Parts: sequence; C-alpha cells; structure tokens
Amino acid sequence: MERPLILVTNDDGITAPGIRALIKVMNQIGDVVVIAPDSPQSGKGHAITIDSILTCNPITIDDGEQIEYSCSGTPADCVKIAVNEILNRKPDLCVSGVNHGSNSSINVVYSGTMSAAIEAGIEGIPAIGFSLLDYSWNADFLPLEKHIKAIATKVLNEGLPDGIVLNVNFPKVKEFQGVKVCRQARSNYQESFNKRTNPQGKEYYWLSGKLQNLDKGEDTDEFALQNEFISVVPVQFDLTAHHFIQNLNSWF
Amino acid sequence: MERPLILVTNDDGITAPGIRALIKVMNQIGDVVVIAPDSPQSGKGHAITIDSILTCNPITIDDGEQIEYSCSGTPADCVKIAVNEILNRKPDLCVSGVNHGSNSSINVVYSGTMSAAIEAGIEGIPAIGFSLLDYSWNADFLPLEKHIKAIATKVLNEGLPDGIVLNVNFPKVKEFQGVKVCRQARSNYQESFNKRTNPQGKEYYWLSGKLQNLDKGEDTDEFALQNEFISVVPVQFDLTAHHFIQNLNSWF
Repeated sequence: MERPLILVTNDDGITAPGIRALIKVMNQIGDVVVIAPDSPQSGKGHAITIDSILTCNPITIDDGEQIEYSCSGTPADCVKIAVNEILNRKPDLCVSGVNHGSNSSINVVYSGTMSAAIEAGIEGIPAIGFSLLDYSWNADFLPLEKHIKAIATKVLNEGLPDGIVLNVNFPKVKEFQGVKVCRQARSNYQESFNKRTNPQGKEYYWLSGKLQNLDKGEDTDEFALQNEFISVVPVQFDLTAHHFIQNLNSWF
Repeated sequence: MERPLILVTNDDGITAPGIRALIKVMNQIGDVVVIAPDSPQSGKGHAITIDSILTCNPITIDDGEQIEYSCSGTPADCVKIAVNEILNRKPDLCVSGVNHGSNSSINVVYSGTMSAAIEAGIEGIPAIGFSLLDYSWNADFLPLEKHIKAIATKVLNEGLPDGIVLNVNFPKVKEFQGVKVCRQARSNYQESFNKRTNPQGKEYYWLSGKLQNLDKGEDTDEFALQNEFISVVPVQFDLTAHHFIQNLNSWF
C-alpha cells in the first residue's frame, strides 16, 4: 500500500516544539509535508490573508524525513496554499499542532490550530487538531506521542464523515486516565483589559482573560480534562442551529 | 420603557458606508454606541489580538446621535473592549455590518462581521450580522433599511436562545421576494493562487478564490439568495458534531 501523505501545520509557528513533536510521530506513519506559519499565529481564528501577499518557501529545520515550507500567512492560509500550490495530490490526513495551550471549549472559536484543521475539513481532507494544556515553550510532549499516533492512525484507517474534524486536547499530566469523546463545554472568557499609557502619553490596552466554564455537564471536554482524560470533540463547520429553524420560521 | 442600548460594529472599518447605513437605522430604535475597527478587517475570522496592544478612542464621523469609538483591533476585539471597558452596562443588542459582500454559506467561518456577532453571543448578548451581496463601496443600502429595522426590533422584543446569533444576508436586488429562514449551504472555495515575482526577484502569492455551492438543497441560504430572498440563518458556536459522538465512542 502507498504510504499516506500527511500535511502538518500549526499556529505557534514552524519552529515550535509542539509541531516538532507532531512531525516526529507523523514521520512514523506517512510521507510528511509541513507547511506552517513563519511566526506565531495564536488567536488568529479562521483569518485568511486577502488584503496582502503570501510567501511560502522551502526550509530545513531539523534532520527528519519531512519536507518543509515556511509560510507568511495564517494557519488557514497554510492549508489553502498547501492544497492548491505545493502538494501534488490531496493529502490523506491533515494534522495541526501540537498547540502550546488549550483549545478546549470556547477556545475552538479563537484557535488558529483548529482553524487549520477546519480548513482542511472544508477541503474534504480528514483532519485533527492536537493541543496540550501547557503554554510553556518547553512543555513535555513525550507522553502524548503514542496517543497521537493511535488517533491519527485510526483516522487514516476509518476516515471521518464529511464535515467533521477532531479537536483533541491533552491535560498537563504525566499519565493520562484514558480517552473521552466529549462535547464542547459551554464557556466564555472573563476579560480584563489592562490600560496603560505609552511614552507619548496616549492610552492603550492589553487584552487578557480567564476562561469560565459555565457548564456543569460531565460529558464535556473541560470535565474530561479536569479529570486527567484526553478529550476528543468531533467538530463541525455547519454552524446552523438546526433546532431553532422551526421556531424562527414563525417570525417571518 | 428605557431605550435599548445597541452596540454596532463591523469588519469593513468604521467609515464604511455599510456601517453608516446600519447606524442610521439603529438610531431609530435605541441608544447607539459604535465601537468599530479603524481599518478594514475582512477575512479576519474570529481573530483576537493577544500579542499586541489595542487602542480605542472616541471619534465623530457624522452628525448622527450615536457615540463612536475607533478601535485598532479585530471585530471580536471591538466587542470585547466594548463590553468590558467602554459600555456602562451590557447592551441589549449587538449588530454587525452591514458587510460589503456575502457572509452566506461557508463565508461565515472566515467572516469578521459574523465573528463580532458570535463574540457578542458568547458574551450573552442577542446579536445579528447583516451582509449585502455587493462588494462595492457605493453599494445601495437603502432597500435594506426597513428589513434591518424589522429584524432588529424582533430580536429586541423576542430575544434569542442562549448560544444562537443570526446571520442575515441580502441579495443584490432592488426588491426582495421576502425573508427565508435557512440552513448554511455546504460549500467551499475553489482557490487559485496568483504567483508573482517581487522587484527583488522573490516569488510571492495572492490568494483568490471562487465560492462553489456543493449543496442542491432548496432550504439553504445560497438557494434563497439566488432566488432574491433575504436569508436568515440561526448560527451557533457550539461546534460539537453531536450526531457523531456515539459512533466515535466505539473508537476508544
């Protein structure tokens, strides 16, 4: 059987330890092409570059077997340029991450990591976003490796339904309790804006916030992660609230 | 009864004719505060600014009754700073747009206009994104006004269920056939990258693409718009593909 073609990207940038860990695992199961941002793109959501140019150039970061390109765009741009310009054929799998930090619950909406996976899903490619609940640059990705390999292999073998990608989050623990399939917890951010004054006397702000879990369910990703399980949420990009259509019809 | 407090934002920037049209209508039904990007933010998806600063300053653009602030951030940033720093109380309604161009079908994922509405929804504020299928700066927003007023008034009176915002798109016609509640059409972009060479001899790309409607359903936003109806899609930000959870459970 032909070795699968695997596209790897992320949002922390092509040199991040998280993507290095992911590439290492993917090299074991397929032919790997990395097309990832040349700079950090956290919080970029599903942004695409339409008012400026993109560059995408071959690069060698380590001595692995993968082929790599460094791209000036967002994670979603990386997937678009990979599929349309760089790769000779449609990849069999797209993996994004491993993100340095959580993409559970409402984070999925802001996440560059997940937007790359969703973009691949839109293009009809089975896709997975991987994230570790550890923001530090020297986070330990070693305990994740066998689980990433197992989940990626499963998706390669089974495929995913049209319109669905996977959002996989790992708690920051040495030993996982197992894997739990979950729904996205209802949550939001309690924001606080830090107001400062610049050297010219003008005010500016830094955005910061703390995630609030508003969901008491025990079937959520937040609950699984708190209990040291790996969470797997099937994510769709049909955003229609189908259950409200009938009610809304009575309005017009 | 107290006049409702209405937050207005967009992604084409605070001086765009589309937001001016929206402000004009909102001034008829409530007290309006505008907090909108100081520059175009199309295609910014649900990006937020976490690696740089934000500015947000009072500004006067026209002689309407609204209060206005110009913000250096993305549409989602505008909503966050509005709710947490600028407004004295939670607004009764957030409206975003009117976007110069479509946010129907898969566009919702890339849309700055809709990300502002979704951000408001995450914060528990009833929210609507309005878009006109006309990219030109001097698009005619006049035929939209009475419909925008009717839909906004309806949302103010009835509210929206927790976790749902509305995505309203107007076809580019003088006379609408009516309003249709729809689901998001399955679609994607057929991209083409335009490869060029810069004055220093280095290659770069421009992303462009054409929407492909992959959906033959007659209950979609694309179908409604093609038939000159205003489309209204209820949009949710719980991205969980609930229908696939049971199946996925058998994997682990």
